[in-house]
Order: sequence, then C-alpha cells, then structure tokens
Amino acid sequence: MSGISRRDILAAGAVGSSLVAARAFATPLDGTRMLPKRMSRSTFATAVKELQAIVGSDWVFADEESTVSYRKSFIPDLRGEHVPSGAVAPESVEEVQAILKVANKYRLPLWPISTGHNMGYGMATPASSGQMILDLKRMNRILDFDAELGTILVEPGVTYQQIHDYIAEHKLPYWIDVPTVGPIVSMVGNTLERGVGYTPYGDHFFMQCGMEVVLADGSVLKTGMGSVQNSTTWQAFKWGYGPYLDGIFTQSNFGVVTKLGMWLMPQPPVYKPFVVRYPNAEDVAKATDTIRPFRMNNLIPNGVLIMGALYQLAMFKRRTDIFNGTGAIPEELIKAEARRNGLGMWNTYFALYGTDATIAATEPILRAAFEASGGEVLTEAEMTGNPWFEHHKTLMRGGMTLEEIGLVRWWGSNGGAVAFAPVAPAKGAETAGQSALAREIMNKHGFDYAPAYAVGGRELHHIIFLMFDKGDDDSSARAETCINEMIVRFGEKGWCAYRSSVSTMDLVARQYGETNRTVNARIKHALDPNHILAPGKQGIA
Amino acid sequence: MSGISRRDILAAGAVGSSLVAARAFATPLDGTRMLPKRMSRSTFATAVKELQAIVGSDWVFADEESTVSYRKSFIPDLRGEHVPSGAVAPESVEEVQAILKVANKYRLPLWPISTGHNMGYGMATPASSGQMILDLKRMNRILDFDAELGTILVEPGVTYQQIHDYIAEHKLPYWIDVPTVGPIVSMVGNTLERGVGYTPYGDHFFMQCGMEVVLADGSVLKTGMGSVQNSTTWQAFKWGYGPYLDGIFTQSNFGVVTKLGMWLMPQPPVYKPFVVRYPNAEDVAKATDTIRPFRMNNLIPNGVLIMGALYQLAMFKRRTDIFNGTGAIPEELIKAEARRNGLGMWNTYFALYGTDATIAATEPILRAAFEASGGEVLTEAEMTGNPWFEHHKTLMRGGMTLEEIGLVRWWGSNGGAVAFAPVAPAKGAETAGQSALAREIMNKHGFDYAPAYAVGGRELHHIIFLMFDKGDDDSSARAETCINEMIVRFGEKGWCAYRSSVSTMDLVARQYGETNRTVNARIKHALDPNHILAPGKQGIA
Repeated sequence: MSGISRRDILAAGAVGSSLVAARAFATPLDGTRMLPKRMSRSTFATAVKELQAIVGSDWVFADEESTVSYRKSFIPDLRGEHVPSGAVAPESVEEVQAILKVANKYRLPLWPISTGHNMGYGMATPASSGQMILDLKRMNRILDFDAELGTILVEPGVTYQQIHDYIAEHKLPYWIDVPTVGPIVSMVGNTLERGVGYTPYGDHFFMQCGMEVVLADGSVLKTGMGSVQNSTTWQAFKWGYGPYLDGIFTQSNFGVVTKLGMWLMPQPPVYKPFVVRYPNAEDVAKATDTIRPFRMNNLIPNGVLIMGALYQLAMFKRRTDIFNGTGAIPEELIKAEARRNGLGMWNTYFALYGTDATIAATEPILRAAFEASGGEVLTEAEMTGNPWFEHHKTLMRGGMTLEEIGLVRWWGSNGGAVAFAPVAPAKGAETAGQSALAREIMNKHGFDYAPAYAVGGRELHHIIFLMFDKGDDDSSARAETCINEMIVRFGEKGWCAYRSSVSTMDLVARQYGETNRTVNARIKHALDPNHILAPGKQGIA
Repeated sequence: MSGISRRDILAAGAVGSSLVAARAFATPLDGTRMLPKRMSRSTFATAVKELQAIVGSDWVFADEESTVSYRKSFIPDLRGEHVPSGAVAPESVEEVQAILKVANKYRLPLWPISTGHNMGYGMATPASSGQMILDLKRMNRILDFDAELGTILVEPGVTYQQIHDYIAEHKLPYWIDVPTVGPIVSMVGNTLERGVGYTPYGDHFFMQCGMEVVLADGSVLKTGMGSVQNSTTWQAFKWGYGPYLDGIFTQSNFGVVTKLGMWLMPQPPVYKPFVVRYPNAEDVAKATDTIRPFRMNNLIPNGVLIMGALYQLAMFKRRTDIFNGTGAIPEELIKAEARRNGLGMWNTYFALYGTDATIAATEPILRAAFEASGGEVLTEAEMTGNPWFEHHKTLMRGGMTLEEIGLVRWWGSNGGAVAFAPVAPAKGAETAGQSALAREIMNKHGFDYAPAYAVGGRELHHIIFLMFDKGDDDSSARAETCINEMIVRFGEKGWCAYRSSVSTMDLVARQYGETNRTVNARIKHALDPNHILAPGKQGIA
C-alpha cells in the first residue's frame, strides 16, 4: 500500500499552480493538447485506455487539470518545450512491465520520475514535450533495512523524510545523507541524478549498492549480487561479477530503476559542526586550497560546502529586502547584508564526527590551517541561533530541512530558478576563475551571482543558482540566454556541468564529445530499440 | 620508449618454462599448432603478416618458442583449453587501432593483457584456446602525476614498482595501494579486474578516475571528464555527465583500456600497523564481527586482512616442512606450526594512519574491542622481525613485496595454484559458514584450506588459495574438480565469486542469472559486433 491518493497528486499541482506557466490544455484527450511526437490523437487515446486497464483510471493523468503537477517547474520554458502529454503512476514492478509493453506497442515515450522534485533542473518535466511521465511515487516501500550493515533497499517513491522517520521509529543508529530539500526528495531519484549531500556519505552514487532495473523489454535486471539466488550480499557489495552495470543506469534513459540499495552512515558518538567565515569575494581560492588537503587525507570527512553570501541570504530573504535598483546587486551591499547576518562573503561548513578524543586530536590542525588562510573558525559556541549555521548543522548530520526552497522566491512569488553546476579540480585557481566568469556573465544579464561550491574529494561542484522571475517573460528569456552562455563559455575553458536541466541536456552532452555520444547511443539502441524511455535525457535519443 | 625488448618477453617465458605444461607447437605457422577457432592456417599466416607490418616483426609472437611466456599459468589446464595462438605487442594507441582493424578483417580474437600477472586466475592465458594475446606491456608510460591532487594517469604496462620508483625519485608525498605481488603487476590490469589491496585505498576500482578505451571499431573513448576539451578534471572527478561508463570496461571484453587514472593516498605523518592474533579456527566469526563496525565507522580506515595460518605459512614454507602424510594437514599440526612462528590460526592485520594524537585517540577503542573478542593485539613493539608481520606492515603502507609468490611452491617447484574468491557480508556467521564449507570440500579432495578474508567496507572477499602440484596430472585433475565443486556449492548458498580464473568464467557467470548475461551480451554486440575482443571473458561471448 502506497498511502498516496490521486487527490495527493492533484493537490501537489494545485499548491504549485501559481508557479506554472499556463498552457492551453482542453478537456480530456480532445481540443488543443500536447501529444507525443508523431502520434495521432486516436492512437494516444487508445494507449491511454490500455494504460488505464493496467493501473486503473485513477492513476492515468491525461487532461489539463490532472497534469498540472507534472508541468510545474522553476526553469525557463518560454516555448513550452517541456510539457508532458500526461502521466501514469504504477504501483508495482509488474505494472511497470505492462506499461512498457504498451509504450513499445504504440511508441509512446515515457519519462520516468521518482517523486519529481529535481528542483533546479526541471522538476518532473521531460526533455521534450509530449512524453508521458512514468510517475513512480506510489512505489514507496522501504523493502529492507539491515541494522548490522547499515544498508537500506528502497523503491523510487521513498523520500528522505520517510527514511528519516523509519530510522527514528525503529531507533536505528544510522544517519542518512540528504540533498537540498531532502524531505520531499526521493533517495532513488537523487542518487540516479548523482546528487550530493553534506555528510561523509555526501557522494550518493558512491554509497549506492545494488539496483533493480526494468528494461524497455520488461525484463528485470538486478545488478551486482542481486541476481545471485539466495544472496545476502546485494546491499553489501557494489561491484558484483563481470562488467559493473549500475553506472549506466544513472543520468541515463537505459532502464527504469525500481529498487535501489544505499549505505547509511553509523551515527557517531560526537558531532561537531564548524563554519569558517571569509570576508571577501576573492577568498574563495584560499578557502579551496585550505580544504583540499583535508578532504584528501580525510581529516575533514564530510562534503564541505563553501557557501557564497548571496546564496545564503536568498534562502531567507527576498531581493527587495536588500536592493531595489536595476542590474545585479552591488557587491558592497551584499557584503554589508552578509555582515549584518553573521555571514562572510564565503562561509565554509564542515564537521567532525567521532569521539571527544578524536575530535580534540583533529580540531587544532584544522583551526591552525584555516586561520592561517585568513578564515575565522566558528562553532556552536559562537554561532548557535544563526539560521544559516543551524541550517548547515542540520544538513551535515543528515537532518530534514526545506529552507533552500526559499531561493525560488528571490524575485517574488513566481518562482524561477535554474542551476548550472560545472565541476573542477578542488584548486583555488579554478574556483577563482569560475567565480569571476560566472559573475561577469550573470551580472551582464542582470542577474545576481548566488554560488555555492560543494567540495567532494579532489573535485568540486560549483553550484550556480540562477534566480529569475518566471512570471516575467523578459526575465525568463534573459535567464535562458544567460544559462546557455554560461554553459558555452565555461565549456570553452574545459569546465562542464556534471548534470543539467532538461532544457540544456543536449547542449551539455555535445561538450562531452562525439565518441561519448556514439557509445551512449549504441548502448541505448541495444537496450531500448524503440527508444521509448526518456528520449533526450542527457542528450541521448 | 617502452624500455622493454623482445628478449625481455622471451626471457620471461624461459624463467617460467619449467612451470609450463608442454604443448605440441612446431616451427613458425606450420606443423601442429594452436589456431584461432574457425580460422585456416593460411588466413592466420596472412593476419600475422599484417600485424607484423603494424608493430614490426619483433613484436609478433607466433611460434612455439616465443609464445612460451604467454602460455604459462598456475591454474589447472589438463585439456589445453587456454593456449593462445600467439601474441602481438603494440607500442601506441595508433598501433592498437590498426591491430583491431586487422582483427575485425579476419575475425581474429584478441585477448588483451596489461602485464599478464593475473596470478591466481590464469596469468596471461585466454578464456579459450586460439585467441591471440594483445600484450600492452610495452605501453608503459606514466603520463601525468598531479602533485596537488595526488592523481596519476598511466598506461597498461606500468607496474606498481614503476610508480613506486617514480614517487621516490620525485619525492612525492603519496602512497600507492598494491595488490599481492605488486612489483610485477600492472595498476591498470589489477584495477580492471577490480583487485583489492591493503591501505585505505584498497578498493582499487573505487579509487580509479578516468579511462581511455579503444573500442573494437578503433574509436577512442575517454570516460568521465576526459572527453571535454581543455578539461583539467579528468583525474579529479569520476562520474562525468550522462551514464557513468567506466564500470562496463572492468571485468569485461567491451574495449581495450589504454589509459587509466587513479587517486593516490596522501602519506600520513604517522603510520602504526597492528596484528590481532586469534588462537582457534572458529575465531574467524569473532574477528569479523569485531572488525565490521570499525570499517563502517572508519576507525579502521584500511582494507583489513584476516589471514588464515596456512595461507601465511605457505608464503615461506613448503608443505613437506610441516607434513609428509596423505590427505590434508591435520589442524593440530597447522596450529602448532603457527604458534612456533608467532602466528595464531587467524591473524588480523590493520593499521592506523594520522598523527600521534589521532592514533592515541583511536587505539584504545580498538584494543578494548579486539581484546573483548578474545584477540591478542600486537604492534611493532612485540612483532618487529616476524616475517609475516613485516610483510603486512609493508603492504599496509603500499610497499613492494613479492613474498606471496611463495604460495605457488607449496607442493614443490611445479607451481600450481588457483584462487576462488566468493564475497559475503562482513558478518561472523557468514565467515564461519564459508570457512567450514571450504575446508570440507578441499580436505575431501586432498587439499589444504589456505584462506584469507579481505574485509572491505560492509563486505568481505574470502580468498581461498587452492595450492596443488601442476606437475602431477592427478593433482591437477583433483584441483579442477575441487574448484568447480566449491563454485557450485558456494553458489547454492548465495556465495558467488567477485572474479574468476579463465577456466571458470562461464560457470560463475551462470550464477549471476540469465538477465545479467543477456544485458552483457547486448552491450557486447553493440560495442564489438564481430566479437573480436576476449570472447568468453567473464562468460561474455
């Protein structure tokens, strides 16, 4: 029993409806409406009927009203290029298999989602209009939890909140690692997009172990040890035997992932969060060079965030709280507002996990290095009550917070935001260069540079949150131009995105070269010969 | 310049020639000789001629004498099922591409090797007779070493010794992680087989970052960030954009890996090795349950080895030093011999890496737990000079040692050994069950149970080294029967190998189920439509 009702899905749309660019949809299956490419209205109607026979008519959404929640996104979409034709929500693997049969029969493109909260990247919307959303949120069971190994096996609809509650209810000594807006996000969805978090288990795909994948032809693949009969090792050992396959089902359209295993972090006896405040925009290089060796030698074990002042401020403030002029907010204003709120221009959050003794042995080494780099090292002693510190204190122990949703309200209630996340080696010169280039391009287009850097091991993700006014077509158009220019100009310097919004998947894919595309295309054709699964995802037809 | 001469390759054969089961090879390209399946003698001769035109005649080996080094292995091969038709040794990617063109033209199957020291699994020999060895050992350049990031990019012929020497020569503050007999082994080869080592970087594929792969059609794929022009991130960020592909080129025959990136461990200020001695065979369960939480919370950061007494003794002793009777050596004799040498029946090696203060904060926690489990915790204070402790002390800091080669001489000079390595969750009940089953089967066939467990994070590899007399056909036949019975009976309990010798690749692949095989077969056909690369590897035609 999923516990989700049709009403829940419709309500999700209603809640967000003010954020949705209105599109002309008419009554069910007639009038002006979005159809799958190269599919007639009558074929679509037939396919919908067959889908209804599989999942029940309550779980097929094919008219304007019922698909509202699936059309909602925060990215620019002026030409309506990401409008689904409908949605179908199965409850089981068997229903997924039956749906795929129908999709193959009618060449109906399906865009699988877990919970559809891919916030900065297009939410549930497909790479191209007309695809039908394969909504897996009703498959939301926690299938296994090994309390000795700290491993979990979940379905796509399971949210981080659900796992958090399960752990609390069963008093299990484990922490999860959440991405931004964790409570409403699917662990499967985030991991498949190779999202990152804030604890030592911050690289989610690194910590993933075992998948079940329904292929386009309906066959069910269990990766790793999952296909061995009587195996107890599916969630314990990642690699299995022969080619390691899990990777090809991430950021991909090669199959529908219906189960996924993850490792969870043992709860440490002591947890101590830190922030290092740097006063100036150019200090990001020093912060980066100070962090790198500690991430490499694991003295700092968690995913470190170097948060730009404006990214932080935008969580809790509107733009008009700070600035009412035209163009980007002047740096001095940002700096002053940051100072008033106990923030630096860059705020580096990390934590120590262990015992009092292990933390006491490590802390002085870190303090000395950060202070030598010009940072101010602060802990709960100084920062308790500061909302940004509290936010990261929650995140770095895998706690639940929705506060970053505030970012989409920067320009008002017509939430517009799209993320661009180029990766680079964790070197000061790289962050200095990236920040300068991003600021230049964004300011030119009238946007504020609101950055964060997530430092993994040897690399970092530069998370640039482009906030705009989705209620204003000019703002949307500039946002689109700006994001495309960033992708292209960063790409010229060898800085490419690790992930992309549905509107720029192809643009980014081209930067990864022809051979890469050809290999993906060959595997795609081998596993999904009718190309029914998420055409266009990550630029793969 | 590779620095390797034709003479080196011939000499490698001569050195090992006493270990080779004699096969009837006649003069070059005529007489009774091994040919590729379904290929005529004249076609083979033509193909060889074309290969000679590419690499020079010095680098094609197609007669009995010159292929001796490629036929050498320690596994049982009574029916000559793993005899190559010859070998070709290119010096560059361009030569690899040209060779693949010839192979496609004549349907000549190629078995790629790096240095060919896959010791317990068949050395350089192919999964089926008649394949030509694609020997990459002349491609042995260290192409890049980023001293800030601790990353390296190497070609397949680069040995761990070479990297070790490079680091020493350039005084770089990094350690490598070596597998058994590291000095002669290729970092690329070991990583592609998903081998494991002894430091915190012991899971080699985990630490791998970026590949270059020549596909069967000659196209060159750079994975991850490697295909982005001007990228500085190839060795810093593993996942890239879109489907993560590296995994499908490990334990696989989908392409020829010609470059591979790895992360290296920063050298810690202080290194402290430990051994925990357990007196009885049944103590393996207690050892496992004690280690697991410390691997999960990373208080023990490295790949822990739980070494059985007999595996240890066999490194430095011959069987006749201990026992001259028939059947397996009685447990009491093993125990007594272990005691005489300062060993327990199980010897758990781990290490701490850090500063004096961090180690002082951690050590008491570990000591208390191991002592409570009945183990005796020993360090350099007690164990310096003990050859087994010194051996693991070397390994756990990535040092060079060839001492485990001793295992193949257990029954005398006709080295016979084959490894079976089933994986399991790191739980005491699993190790107790596996050890009991392995001992029963091996003893029944007249062999000694010489085990080691390598504890990763949440799983362990049970490394069972079956030592036999390759000079004795009866011993070889029993070894073959024994290894097959182990694979089948372990498989019935859900315990399957993470890797396999060339003689049992298909048997193991079947245990991973039909869907897994079908998916691999489809990808294989998409990427290598003529099936010229390593047919049969991991059971993939």
